[in-house]
Amino acid sequence: MKSIVIQQPNDLVIETRPLPEPVAGDVRVRITLAGICGSDSHIYRGHNPFAKYPRVIGHEFFGVIDAVGEGVDQARLGQRVSVDPVISCGTCYPCSVGKPNVCTSLVVLGVHRDGGFSEYAVVPAKNAWPVPDEIPDEHAVMIEPFTIAANVTGHAQPTEQDVALIYGAGPMGLVTVQALKGVYNVKQVIVVDRIDERLAMAQRSGADWVFNNRDRPVAAALAEKGIKPTLIIDAACHPTILQEAVSLASPAARIVLMGFSSEPSQVVQQGITGKELSIFSSRLNANKFPVVIDWLQKGLIDPNKLIAHRFDYHHVTDAIELFEKDQRQCCKVLLTFAQ
Amino acid sequence: MKSIVIQQPNDLVIETRPLPEPVAGDVRVRITLAGICGSDSHIYRGHNPFAKYPRVIGHEFFGVIDAVGEGVDQARLGQRVSVDPVISCGTCYPCSVGKPNVCTSLVVLGVHRDGGFSEYAVVPAKNAWPVPDEIPDEHAVMIEPFTIAANVTGHAQPTEQDVALIYGAGPMGLVTVQALKGVYNVKQVIVVDRIDERLAMAQRSGADWVFNNRDRPVAAALAEKGIKPTLIIDAACHPTILQEAVSLASPAARIVLMGFSSEPSQVVQQGITGKELSIFSSRLNANKFPVVIDWLQKGLIDPNKLIAHRFDYHHVTDAIELFEKDQRQCCKVLLTFAQ
Repeated sequence: MKSIVIQQPNDLVIETRPLPEPVAGDVRVRITLAGICGSDSHIYRGHNPFAKYPRVIGHEFFGVIDAVGEGVDQARLGQRVSVDPVISCGTCYPCSVGKPNVCTSLVVLGVHRDGGFSEYAVVPAKNAWPVPDEIPDEHAVMIEPFTIAANVTGHAQPTEQDVALIYGAGPMGLVTVQALKGVYNVKQVIVVDRIDERLAMAQRSGADWVFNNRDRPVAAALAEKGIKPTLIIDAACHPTILQEAVSLASPAARIVLMGFSSEPSQVVQQGITGKELSIFSSRLNANKFPVVIDWLQKGLIDPNKLIAHRFDYHHVTDAIELFEKDQRQCCKVLLTFAQ
Repeated sequence: MKSIVIQQPNDLVIETRPLPEPVAGDVRVRITLAGICGSDSHIYRGHNPFAKYPRVIGHEFFGVIDAVGEGVDQARLGQRVSVDPVISCGTCYPCSVGKPNVCTSLVVLGVHRDGGFSEYAVVPAKNAWPVPDEIPDEHAVMIEPFTIAANVTGHAQPTEQDVALIYGAGPMGLVTVQALKGVYNVKQVIVVDRIDERLAMAQRSGADWVFNNRDRPVAAALAEKGIKPTLIIDAACHPTILQEAVSLASPAARIVLMGFSSEPSQVVQQGITGKELSIFSSRLNANKFPVVIDWLQKGLIDPNKLIAHRFDYHHVTDAIELFEKDQRQCCKVLLTFAQ
């Protein structure tokens, strides 16, 4: 089989590897579609501290089960599946409180273990989520990105009363806009970004008000309208946003962080405690595949609004470069594995 | 009536004031006991940014209803009551989501409006919580301090699986120890402080392990035993504790802040998001009087463990000075208003 391998930072090859056999409890998936995420690019460029090389990247992928290991129901052969990249022990403290996404022995497909940019991948059977017939392939491969939004909203518990402010109209911001409007019917969703084309995407995803914070500070724009957000989501992930969010938030607001910066943020506790803010962080997803499958079945979200480009996997380098460079036009890029 | 008035910072007088009459919706409480809290001392010393002078301080108080305003049930005359100092509008966003403690028009008795260090106080009828007969007066006056713990644990939702680390064995830390052990039966409660006598009080309040972090850094002491706390409560309120808590926490842990420092804290988001920590803050109490009354009725907490001294209110200056200076022996100081 062919696999897309990052040999070492900035060294990507399409390699021929032996077809892997599923061991007990695993299934083999013949992959038809995969999505490119920022973290694939980070591993490619050597900016992911968790990655070990060589690595088959890719943690958003969809395909059909074509072999099953011992103990796995033979009836799963031929099943269309979308793969949850989060592999957890099931017994540690985080797992025991429903957070396998921060399992103390966490393994993420495409990061710690070979992932889905490959003609085939062997994964734990329980990570391969059956996709109902009415969900088309291109929606199924987008389940993982939407689990990011499901995880964020699982923490924040949005209500119809909320006024939400989202920093960043990249893929994480856009899936969150769709969840807030489509699933939770949040009263007002405001999105700020520094790229107008991104803001237009946010509007297409359902944002009620977007503005470019290159032109106008967020604080001034909100003050002019007398808006104090009750829910703030940092999907831009710059370390200075936390203190700005604390200042802008309504009393009793929730803030959700998704950033991984190693640069310290400065934050004043008087601003947090005085308003009794809650600050959640959100990493990957905690058992959110069934949640997003339900959203898709009910038509609450529309993955098509995010898909900008499709590339045959042989052109993966072009695809990643487009993803990295063309932030104006590009959002989600899919790789096709036609077999 | 006599009232303890802070005329301006560092100027305390016992003043004769006219007996106030309750207006519609209010009750007048003849006060028999009041507790001294750090924030009373802060207003006395001019360190509370919210206080306006002159001010009758005191927000922990108990007494008997001796007059009712229009619209209040006459049957409440003679009722023993403990007074919730949080007065809220009931309609703003924080009130609508059950957080009157950060109401946009928040009024705190003893801070924004005259409080309970007085022979009588007029308060909204709904703030005067009837105290069941089986709860003695000295327990009833301690309801407010325990609502601080009820508010903290309301955010943190402790479980029997938790390993909790509490910074600070002052009154806020001690009520929290009692709640974690007595109410939630948390597996292990660890308390750190820099005063051995305080640590002894924490042990009497139920802490499983206490140590002095003047002698030994918290990180080293926990590492030695391989402990990663799943719940960390900062009741010491120093701005540097947040980053230490983030570093020490187990993945999936919750951190609760109670601090009001205006000095910035530095915190690295990689440490927060990598472990998907949740950081709550807790201010005053949100409708927790009935919760603590229930705890007292069930015998889950013991206020006597915190009461160190009793003073007639004429000696309030001595009482506050003792509270401020003798951190080794002193914990909760009560003022008695014998009439």
